[in-house]
Amino acid sequence: MTLKLHNFFRSSTSTRLRAALNLKGLEYDYIPYALRKGETRTPGYLAKNPQGLVPSLEREDGTVLTQSLAIIEWLDETHPEPALLPTDADGRARVRALAYMLACEIHPLNNLRVLFRLGDQFGADDAAQKEWFTHWVTLTFDAFETALTDSTGTGTFCHGDAPGLADICLYAQVWNNKRFDIPTENWPTIARIFTELDKLPAFQKAAPPNQPDAV
Amino acid sequence: MTLKLHNFFRSSTSTRLRAALNLKGLEYDYIPYALRKGETRTPGYLAKNPQGLVPSLEREDGTVLTQSLAIIEWLDETHPEPALLPTDADGRARVRALAYMLACEIHPLNNLRVLFRLGDQFGADDAAQKEWFTHWVTLTFDAFETALTDSTGTGTFCHGDAPGLADICLYAQVWNNKRFDIPTENWPTIARIFTELDKLPAFQKAAPPNQPDAV
Repeated sequence: MTLKLHNFFRSSTSTRLRAALNLKGLEYDYIPYALRKGETRTPGYLAKNPQGLVPSLEREDGTVLTQSLAIIEWLDETHPEPALLPTDADGRARVRALAYMLACEIHPLNNLRVLFRLGDQFGADDAAQKEWFTHWVTLTFDAFETALTDSTGTGTFCHGDAPGLADICLYAQVWNNKRFDIPTENWPTIARIFTELDKLPAFQKAAPPNQPDAV
Repeated sequence: MTLKLHNFFRSSTSTRLRAALNLKGLEYDYIPYALRKGETRTPGYLAKNPQGLVPSLEREDGTVLTQSLAIIEWLDETHPEPALLPTDADGRARVRALAYMLACEIHPLNNLRVLFRLGDQFGADDAAQKEWFTHWVTLTFDAFETALTDSTGTGTFCHGDAPGLADICLYAQVWNNKRFDIPTENWPTIARIFTELDKLPAFQKAAPPNQPDAV
């Protein structure tokens, strides 16, 4: 099976999916889309993904999976090793909650189309966009740091000593933060875990600067 | 086991969790928080939920689960009947993708703290907030309608003829849209499914106006 990954190097949802595919040891064809050029708004791509968003994962039979977290759950169900979620229900609830803190409370507010909208509707310039972006990162990273330090579940990574779904979301978000030079050192546990993740080939290979369309 | 539901009648993430608990036939103590009065920002509540968000689900042993979608997945794993996700991996991927379209692309942009922030940072008045809210609902509901009409997986509800995770998110979002008088009739399949959901006691009982703290 050759998977086709429709994605963009800087998109943090794409970074998540690349990390998951790499952890699972799955090969994929890398198909880049320049978001600023509207390449995800063509009829051809909209037929694959009616939201016109990246990433999408196209299977050999032509079926297309969308929404990074849904695709990662699918990968974990169809390719169980190594597991991206714990085996116990409480552990799974904790890891998903950590993942959704990032995926539902930071990323949706800070992606490119939202920053464009702030410009269009409110005339937000780069400085105002940075203020907006930093506000949402800070609010949730403060709580995320507390959730990590307050729990005995935290290990080398967000949950125990193997990387999983929460780490995938964290790694992508920290990379995204670099766009506005947000220093990860403000959150020592997050910074420590990012450093550990960045040592792993599966994550390094998923990092934005290491993609073929990186500029 | 008596579950404590920390929530707010109008919060759509709370509506999701109430619907899931009702579908599972689980009893819970309803503990309301007035968001505008800062009742989720107290030290006592922040100790339960470091994000200071609703909902949280507190178990008899005092442990607290956070993030509505993580709690609903936990409910589905620990109380399997009736199932909120299909049994096949492809079906699960479709239902989760539909759910995340709403939970990751609409709700995070339109909740109360974001509307407040638009006011604080950009001076957005009620009309500007309505324009913002409507923009994001329209963008994703257009794609959601297409995803429903383009798939043979759609039935009485978003996936087949039993309500599940995607329906839970849809029901809550349609209720949230009423805040800004967005007419659901613009999207006929969404409107049809909402009407079907609203006939079910588990959903009716979860609707914002039917909560003890409704004003």
